Amino acid sequence: MRPQPAFVLIRPQMGENIGAAARAMANFGLERMRLVAPRDGWPNPAAVAMASGAGRLLDAAQVFDDTAGSIADCEYVYATTARPRELTKPVLSPQAAMQDAARRIAQGQRVAVLFGPERAGMENDDISRANAIITVPVNPDFPSLNLAQCVLLTGYEWRLATEEVIPERTQMQGDWANQSEIEALSQHYEDRMEDAGFFFPDHKAASMKLNLRNLWSRMPLTRADVQMLHGIMRQMVRWKDRP
Amino acid sequence: MRPQPAFVLIRPQMGENIGAAARAMANFGLERMRLVAPRDGWPNPAAVAMASGAGRLLDAAQVFDDTAGSIADCEYVYATTARPRELTKPVLSPQAAMQDAARRIAQGQRVAVLFGPERAGMENDDISRANAIITVPVNPDFPSLNLAQCVLLTGYEWRLATEEVIPERTQMQGDWANQSEIEALSQHYEDRMEDAGFFFPDHKAASMKLNLRNLWSRMPLTRADVQMLHGIMRQMVRWKDRP
Repeated sequence: MRPQPAFVLIRPQMGENIGAAARAMANFGLERMRLVAPRDGWPNPAAVAMASGAGRLLDAAQVFDDTAGSIADCEYVYATTARPRELTKPVLSPQAAMQDAARRIAQGQRVAVLFGPERAGMENDDISRANAIITVPVNPDFPSLNLAQCVLLTGYEWRLATEEVIPERTQMQGDWANQSEIEALSQHYEDRMEDAGFFFPDHKAASMKLNLRNLWSRMPLTRADVQMLHGIMRQMVRWKDRP
Repeated sequence: MRPQPAFVLIRPQMGENIGAAARAMANFGLERMRLVAPRDGWPNPAAVAMASGAGRLLDAAQVFDDTAGSIADCEYVYATTARPRELTKPVLSPQAAMQDAARRIAQGQRVAVLFGPERAGMENDDISRANAIITVPVNPDFPSLNLAQCVLLTGYEWRLATEEVIPERTQMQGDWANQSEIEALSQHYEDRMEDAGFFFPDHKAASMKLNLRNLWSRMPLTRADVQMLHGIMRQMVRWKDRP
C-alpha cells in the first residue's frame, strides 16, 4: 500500500454509511480506514453489504474507543467540518489540504483526516485535537453533504494531489488527417461544387470558396472522416448521374 | 439564477437517485436539472422525498422524451462516462471541463452535461451527440461512482471554476499576539526558569535559552494564548510559594 492518509470516521451511526464511505475511498485508491466507537459495534453486516467490492477496507479497518487513540500515531491531523467553530485554527479547502497532506506524507509524516458522525457533526473536543480544519466550499444556502460525499470529495482531491491527471486529451480511433489530405478533400468539394454551379453569383465566389476551405481546416478530422466525406460527395455525383 | 450549465439525467431509473442528484447539485449552487425519459414517469414522489431541501430543483426540472430534445438549445455538450468508447472525441477531467464550461458560458453559450442511467451508463448514441467527454479520474481497479456522486464531483468542479475559493485561511478568535507580546512572554519564562535553576549546566544555558526563545516564535499564538501562558507560569510560582 502506498503511503496515504488514514480516514477516521468518528462515532459513525449507520453501517450503510460506513460501507458507502469505504466505496468512496476505494474509488480514489484510499485503503486505510479507522473507526472510533461505531454506534452499532463492529463488524457491522450493513456496512459489509453496502461496501460490496470495497469490503477489503472494512476487513482491514482499525477500531478505537476514542478519537485520541485513533490518531495517536499521527503527526498531523485534519478535521472536516461544515461549521468552523470558535477555535483558532487553520482552515483549508479540500484541495489545499490534500496537497499539504501529500507533501507531509512524502516527508514521512503520518497523517489522518477526521470525519464526524452523521447529522451531529464533529464535537469541539474532537476538532480541538486536529491541527487544521478542512471545509468543502459548498453553497452556504444549501450545505447538505453526507458522510460518504465528504469522504468522496476529500479522496478525490487526494488523488488529484498524488496522481498525474491528464486534464485534456483526445480519445482517437485511427489517426488525424494530415494537411495534404485536408487539402485534397477541400479541392474535391470545391471542384464538384464548381461543377454544380454552387459558387454564384460570380462576385461572391471567391469568398464562398474561402469560407468552405476554412470550414475544413477548422474541423478536427480523422483520416476516416475524410474518407467518409469523399464518399458522400462521390455518392451524390453517382446519384445525380443515375439514369 | 446565474448562467450555469444544465445537468441532464438520461433515462434515470430510481427516483431516489434523481433526488440525490438534485441535492448534490444544490450543494454547489446548480439549479438547472433536465430529465430524459425517467423510467418511473414524472413527477416522482421518491425523488421528492430524497431531495428534501432541494425539491425546488425538481419542481423546475424540464422533462424530455429523448436526448436530442434535451440539448436542442445548447451550443456545447459534455457527456460523463467512466468508459470512453470507440468514438473520436475530446476527453476532459472534471476540472478542465468545468473551467471550459465556465469560459463558454461567460461568452454566452448554453452548455449541458449529460449523465447516463444507473448501472448501464450512457449509450453510444447519446455520447455521439456530445462535443466532449468528462471522465472522473477514479482508481481503475475500483471505479464505482454512482449517479449522484458523479453529479457531485462535476458540480464541485463547477463551483471551483466559478467561485473564488480561498485555499487557506485561519479562523480566528481574537487577534494574533504581536512581537512585543511574544518577547515579553519569552522573557517571563526565561526569567522564571533562570530563578528555578533550569538552565543547567552553565555551558548549555545559552543554547537552551535560544531554543526556548525559538519555540515561542515558532508557535502561532493569539493574545489570549499569551495571557494563558503567562497565567500558567504565575500560578506555578504561586503554588511553589504556598506555605
